[in-house]
Amino acid sequence: MNDFIFPMSPKEPKYKQIYQQLKMLIEQGNLKSNDSLPSIRRLAETLQVSRNTTLTAYEQLVAEGYIRGEGRKGYFVNELEQVFLQQEEATVPTLSTKQEQPTLKIDFRAGAVDQAYFPLKTWRQFANRALQLEDSFVYGEPFGEPLLKEQLAQYLLQARGVKCDAEAIIIGSSTQQMLLYLGCLLKHDFTSVIVEDPGYIGARQAFKVNGFELEALPVLEHGAQLHLLPDMQSRLLYITPSHHFPYGVTMTIQQRQTVIQWAKKVDGYIIEDDYDSEFRYGQQPFPALASIDHSRVIYIGTFSKSFLPGIRLSYMVLPKSLLYRYKEQFSEFEQNASSLHQLTMAAFMDKGEWTRHIKRMRIIYKQKMHYLVEQLKQHFGNDMTILGEHSGLYVLIKLHVHLTEDQLIQRAAQYGVKVYPTSPFFLKCSAAEPVLQLGFSKLTMEDIYQGVQLLAKAWRRPLNNE
Amino acid sequence: MNDFIFPMSPKEPKYKQIYQQLKMLIEQGNLKSNDSLPSIRRLAETLQVSRNTTLTAYEQLVAEGYIRGEGRKGYFVNELEQVFLQQEEATVPTLSTKQEQPTLKIDFRAGAVDQAYFPLKTWRQFANRALQLEDSFVYGEPFGEPLLKEQLAQYLLQARGVKCDAEAIIIGSSTQQMLLYLGCLLKHDFTSVIVEDPGYIGARQAFKVNGFELEALPVLEHGAQLHLLPDMQSRLLYITPSHHFPYGVTMTIQQRQTVIQWAKKVDGYIIEDDYDSEFRYGQQPFPALASIDHSRVIYIGTFSKSFLPGIRLSYMVLPKSLLYRYKEQFSEFEQNASSLHQLTMAAFMDKGEWTRHIKRMRIIYKQKMHYLVEQLKQHFGNDMTILGEHSGLYVLIKLHVHLTEDQLIQRAAQYGVKVYPTSPFFLKCSAAEPVLQLGFSKLTMEDIYQGVQLLAKAWRRPLNNE
Repeated sequence: MNDFIFPMSPKEPKYKQIYQQLKMLIEQGNLKSNDSLPSIRRLAETLQVSRNTTLTAYEQLVAEGYIRGEGRKGYFVNELEQVFLQQEEATVPTLSTKQEQPTLKIDFRAGAVDQAYFPLKTWRQFANRALQLEDSFVYGEPFGEPLLKEQLAQYLLQARGVKCDAEAIIIGSSTQQMLLYLGCLLKHDFTSVIVEDPGYIGARQAFKVNGFELEALPVLEHGAQLHLLPDMQSRLLYITPSHHFPYGVTMTIQQRQTVIQWAKKVDGYIIEDDYDSEFRYGQQPFPALASIDHSRVIYIGTFSKSFLPGIRLSYMVLPKSLLYRYKEQFSEFEQNASSLHQLTMAAFMDKGEWTRHIKRMRIIYKQKMHYLVEQLKQHFGNDMTILGEHSGLYVLIKLHVHLTEDQLIQRAAQYGVKVYPTSPFFLKCSAAEPVLQLGFSKLTMEDIYQGVQLLAKAWRRPLNNE
Repeated sequence: MNDFIFPMSPKEPKYKQIYQQLKMLIEQGNLKSNDSLPSIRRLAETLQVSRNTTLTAYEQLVAEGYIRGEGRKGYFVNELEQVFLQQEEATVPTLSTKQEQPTLKIDFRAGAVDQAYFPLKTWRQFANRALQLEDSFVYGEPFGEPLLKEQLAQYLLQARGVKCDAEAIIIGSSTQQMLLYLGCLLKHDFTSVIVEDPGYIGARQAFKVNGFELEALPVLEHGAQLHLLPDMQSRLLYITPSHHFPYGVTMTIQQRQTVIQWAKKVDGYIIEDDYDSEFRYGQQPFPALASIDHSRVIYIGTFSKSFLPGIRLSYMVLPKSLLYRYKEQFSEFEQNASSLHQLTMAAFMDKGEWTRHIKRMRIIYKQKMHYLVEQLKQHFGNDMTILGEHSGLYVLIKLHVHLTEDQLIQRAAQYGVKVYPTSPFFLKCSAAEPVLQLGFSKLTMEDIYQGVQLLAKAWRRPLNNE
């Protein structure tokens, strides 16, 4: 067995985490019957734990029949019982020569969070408390629960430099929902909107549904072509300044000021989608555009990347010029996000759990990001350029090969690995070489290791049937 | 003390419920120091429990110092400690003569559910389980979780006669959100929509935001003026057939067929808002419009009235002619409703808890409705007409007095009672006499009793300062 590494959580005993991780690898068939395990000493060194810790984990696994010790020879995986074998069949790909699609082994999907480090107990506690509040049994506040809005106002000031009244925050369920609602208001004053190319499709569709014309602002690997702005028709700009989607570039302070100046000059608005600013691994995050000028920026944030996509909790901060009109236009609408989740999140933030969670996840995602980048570099060297490795929950990889995006995806799939295209993000522009998106937030270190190994096989060797 | 009555839950020991109810009345100051309590025999008769049960409850309260027994004289409320007195000040209205608004005592708000009978433990159990599913850590299905859609398809067939594929169901977070999204599609084919007058304002606003013209279909106390339909311009009709909002009338089968025929003839659609069909207290509910003709009806339902408004869970069933276009138009949108709540509700329905809950609540709400109507009749007799008492979670009361709606609301407020206007629901029509809305779902029997007592005082006697 190769070295076995994975990030440790500070919340559970270490021996237990080692035990669980190994058990999972055995049950899922990543470790097979009679595979040898690293020695107690070696594993302790790799994971930087004491030998006692690894010994305890191994003893537990021996006791439960997962592995056996063979004296000096070391530890080996036991034959598995029927119940595990069934699972194994379902998850381990068999690389057939008959052109069958093998079972999905590693999914480099973005848009997921790490379940292993989710603060399940704390969240459950707060959620159960929220269920006992009287406020949970009536219709909530139409524009969001005041308790959550106050917490958000504080957080936005501290973390993003955005000064705003809690009253200027509108809670919503998703970025698209908020863009759609907002568009219903803005379409009275604007007929078109500038969007990044490449850029986020969800936003584009939300604008299109409202009948906006789309004007493409080209974005290159090093950033948006802002010098083109003055020649554009629209006075409305949708942009991702902190972490461009998908290229991952961050706008400099100078660029931010350019954009604000432009908005003032044309009497327009900037919609700033700050979807994953929490995860920046190098320097401190730059302050949001909205921190430079309130009056021109509509700020949008979400808990989908930083916490949990399933709770469907997003928010926007409206400039005063729009706030009253927005509240008027939607005065008879009910809130879209669950008030239970809102009240839970408010308590979670109030008790400092949110900051703790973000700090913890930043460390874990940083480790994963570094490991992924390191593995990719090791296997592909100069044949690959890696983009956007300093922040966010995915990287882009540009492959210098004579294969199309589609061919690369197909080949990866034949090795049980799912990688994602970026071509749908392009409007008019297109990338000269294929660029793929690899999300890692949900994957373990072991997954990342295996995934890159398989990609190396898939993209380096010709496939059996070719 | 007057007779003391409240509905009993089958889930908790009866003595405990009596104990809790009395404790609450004492803590909230409804029962004051030295007030006498009903005798053990009398309370047992009123509540139809054994004397042992009331005795046990009283003994518990004596032990805890809330009340005292004085031999043959009976039981009395004790002086309260400081902690309770503070609470008392906050909740008990002091009917001042100085024109101050007294504290709100009884709120006849619709749009709330009964917290006392919420299946807290079961829901919490299912919710905690949902939090451990892998599906909860990724973006959910854009149009709703398949597990929930399958449960809904079954429920709609059994309870509403609506035959539909799970695939034709779109989950959303609120009726307005779904009407807004739907409107984005329908506005390509329709420029105006017929709405009930009086009718639901939230729906009207959703149509207006999308630029639809509104055409008013007059609804009288005995039903919508459907004979006017053929002369109307629009081919789109938004309607509440099972329980007209706000009048509470139900469309007969003949009327339903008339509407369907009309839609076929004009090649239009009917949007059926079936917002609280679960609570019908006389006969069985009539089948939904959508059960008569799939192809012409967009069916909308919600968990806000029947379960919990805070979870923000609604759904619609689209006819085939719209389904594909809808999914196309919103292909890049994420779901608006929490996937955690969706998965929890799916399990809750699957295990039969949903049906059990609805049955239980129907009995409880029916008792409350009967009690409210009985109390109103007793105090107001022929001076009041009660509308919509056979279903739903509110009644309308029409007062035959020379006071305006606003005066009635003000007078009630001066006695600490909040009642709600219906005039905002009218578009062109208006009621000849003031009509008020009284919701009761969140109130206890004691609240209802007190509320009507206070209304009788407020509306019968001239106020001190007049």
